[in-house]
Amino acid sequence: MPQYDLVGIGNALVDVVAQTDEAFLTENGLAKGAMTLVDAPAADALYDKMPAGMESSGGSCGNSMAGFAALGGKGAYIGKVSDDQLGGVFRHDMRAIGCVFDTPPAKDGPSTGRCLVLVTPDAQRTMCTFLGAACSLTPGDLDKALLQSAKVVYMEGYLFDQPPAQQAFAEAAEIAHAAGREVSVTLSDGFCVDRHRDAFRNLVEKHIDILFANEVEICSLYGVDDFDEALQQVRGHCRVACLTRSEKGAVVLRGDEVHIVDAEPVGQVVDTTGAGDQFAAGFLYGYTQGRDLHSCGRMGAIAAAEVIQHYGARPEADLKALVRKVRGA
Amino acid sequence: MPQYDLVGIGNALVDVVAQTDEAFLTENGLAKGAMTLVDAPAADALYDKMPAGMESSGGSCGNSMAGFAALGGKGAYIGKVSDDQLGGVFRHDMRAIGCVFDTPPAKDGPSTGRCLVLVTPDAQRTMCTFLGAACSLTPGDLDKALLQSAKVVYMEGYLFDQPPAQQAFAEAAEIAHAAGREVSVTLSDGFCVDRHRDAFRNLVEKHIDILFANEVEICSLYGVDDFDEALQQVRGHCRVACLTRSEKGAVVLRGDEVHIVDAEPVGQVVDTTGAGDQFAAGFLYGYTQGRDLHSCGRMGAIAAAEVIQHYGARPEADLKALVRKVRGA
Repeated sequence: MPQYDLVGIGNALVDVVAQTDEAFLTENGLAKGAMTLVDAPAADALYDKMPAGMESSGGSCGNSMAGFAALGGKGAYIGKVSDDQLGGVFRHDMRAIGCVFDTPPAKDGPSTGRCLVLVTPDAQRTMCTFLGAACSLTPGDLDKALLQSAKVVYMEGYLFDQPPAQQAFAEAAEIAHAAGREVSVTLSDGFCVDRHRDAFRNLVEKHIDILFANEVEICSLYGVDDFDEALQQVRGHCRVACLTRSEKGAVVLRGDEVHIVDAEPVGQVVDTTGAGDQFAAGFLYGYTQGRDLHSCGRMGAIAAAEVIQHYGARPEADLKALVRKVRGA
Repeated sequence: MPQYDLVGIGNALVDVVAQTDEAFLTENGLAKGAMTLVDAPAADALYDKMPAGMESSGGSCGNSMAGFAALGGKGAYIGKVSDDQLGGVFRHDMRAIGCVFDTPPAKDGPSTGRCLVLVTPDAQRTMCTFLGAACSLTPGDLDKALLQSAKVVYMEGYLFDQPPAQQAFAEAAEIAHAAGREVSVTLSDGFCVDRHRDAFRNLVEKHIDILFANEVEICSLYGVDDFDEALQQVRGHCRVACLTRSEKGAVVLRGDEVHIVDAEPVGQVVDTTGAGDQFAAGFLYGYTQGRDLHSCGRMGAIAAAEVIQHYGARPEADLKALVRKVRGA
């Protein structure tokens, strides 16, 4: 009996959310609504100038782990922070949401990664991300016993920009598979897939049991324009594929099996940040509970619908209650 | 080499379209926007009172044959009219659109079926349908040589309310299959499927190669609430299933093969009448031209998108030109 349901490997980022006015964006040359990658000095300079903010653990996989824990799943996280103040914030938060996080912090090198989120009065989010320590994850950071002790390993594609992290993914998959566990990945971002298409395909074909990708990402993976064409290709390449399509719902494939999962009806869409992260959380929760694939997809759709109806990438409503309506939950 | 691409079997109805005012509807006790089945005296009485109208051949399968011909397919039609004036109108129109129609008219019995369409100034359509001769189709009306000479036979589910027509479907399928042809059916209407669920399932399981159904109809066929559940069931029951879902597009299944066909983007949706008929027309055109299933589905989606952007159930734009954008068309 595995000790954990899910172990995630991701970019360990602290979100720093602060209210600012439009003038602050202009003064600091920030494109409203965009996400910009910045270096350490730029991040430090901006952080110094920012109003007092709310710090919390973030990052795509971190968000999924939060949703997974909210659903009642037993999760653990592997990610790289520095031995600094924000590293402490990240660690505290992950534990507070009920997710085990024991990756040792980096003693030197860049500081803890952060995503500075500036919210203007019109509720728009402008983001500056400094990856920092997060992207220095190497195979040496993998906790072998942890990987062996979880039903499924879940990896965040954003990490693929770093060759040592790519290597860590391959090694994590091998450790998990040798212990009879399953391995999943989210492609995270179409541009990221474009930059590393061959490496991603190699990963998917050799190491992945459960793939998460949205329409743009799966088309990018196979270099095609048409969703259905990408769908034909992916069927042979990993055991389970979850292809998410925003309001068009999702298609879940396993061998000859195919399921159409409709998007969960929502009232007002407020902020689509984190929809993919929460779909993965809901799906993997159902999956690790041994649910049928359609029910897993429904749980993903419900978790995604919850998160897009409010600001922020983590669930606020009682996800456990929301997924109870899925047959037999 | 078959002489025809497609032979359709349907309710041979003449559409009589006239402009009226709201008062006319009220005076004649008609529920605006609805389709009501009426008997011969009621149809005659209403027809006498109606303003001068435009007569043209209609009916679900007739509409599909019109789309099929517009795409360039060689089609023929089997359906029952009476030897009267409207029967002559139906025959003339079918031939005018390029569709062979040689079923002998009934020499006695009810007059030619018609659908009286009253268009009010707000562009709403109120319909009264008298099935008349259309529903008196029997196995004796089947042209065996014609059924043997077309690549695919296409049958309209609406006819299933009449036991002799059900028998005609089974016999038509047997004749076609014995000649090495394929057989398709559209379920036409959720209520109709409800009324004849067992007979429809028997037909689909024993005789059908290509099934067309919308979401309501396929759920009705299997007595389930959930589209994905219906999808799981239909996969084993006929070789090809085209499940249409309005703006959600269509799912096309053949054995282990599955294709997601998105709805074609449209400007304004004016009148959804005939969307399913034209999807079938486009799909079957591609199919009888030997196109891959995804391309067939795209052609169906394009033909359906065209027809919902104007009033009336038959194509007005140049469908041949519209489907040229489908790869390799």
